[in-house]
Amino acid sequence: MNEILEQALLYDFYGELLTAHQKNIYEQFVLEDLSLSEIAEDAGISRQGVHDLIKRCNKTLEGYESKLHLVERFLSIKEKVHRMNTLLEEKEKISTEELIREIKGISSEILEEL
Amino acid sequence: MNEILEQALLYDFYGELLTAHQKNIYEQFVLEDLSLSEIAEDAGISRQGVHDLIKRCNKTLEGYESKLHLVERFLSIKEKVHRMNTLLEEKEKISTEELIREIKGISSEILEEL
Repeated sequence: MNEILEQALLYDFYGELLTAHQKNIYEQFVLEDLSLSEIAEDAGISRQGVHDLIKRCNKTLEGYESKLHLVERFLSIKEKVHRMNTLLEEKEKISTEELIREIKGISSEILEEL
Repeated sequence: MNEILEQALLYDFYGELLTAHQKNIYEQFVLEDLSLSEIAEDAGISRQGVHDLIKRCNKTLEGYESKLHLVERFLSIKEKVHRMNTLLEEKEKISTEELIREIKGISSEILEEL
């Protein structure tokens, strides 16, 4: 996964645990794709200050994930539901019986993770 | 949902954010179902101390959920997968076409939440 996507995902899960100031700066960088200089000018802090804050936020968010693994759990479920969807989209490729058996198998796998 | 089940669920999601001491006491109460007096004796603290610690842990865990809503997100997905499973278990009740349409609908609903 590319870094920005990973940061956005971590932010989606744990962002509410950052302070309002951190969220404001981090969103501009990760979600709105502004440059460090643009954010610095707008916030009235140095470019280095913005850089450090974002680095600290990354560390905080990664810390939560390394303890809770909730992004990992969600992504694993997502992958399985996508697999199910693909089977349903291409349902003419296999027999209906087989399709239903496959879907049942995947849905049991998901329930084990929930 | 009954209180102990809710506490166990919150602990499953956010427990790693408690301290080792808090986890130790909280697990004995919520997961091992020991009484306050038993825990107090074993830990060498007062019954009131155990009571306060558990109350504080509940508050901390509920605080995480009120910010992140991840238990809520998981439960909503779980309910949908169960719905899917029930349809598959009782597949003779509706036509195969209808079954596949229903399953597709639910799997899209789940993907929207992921």
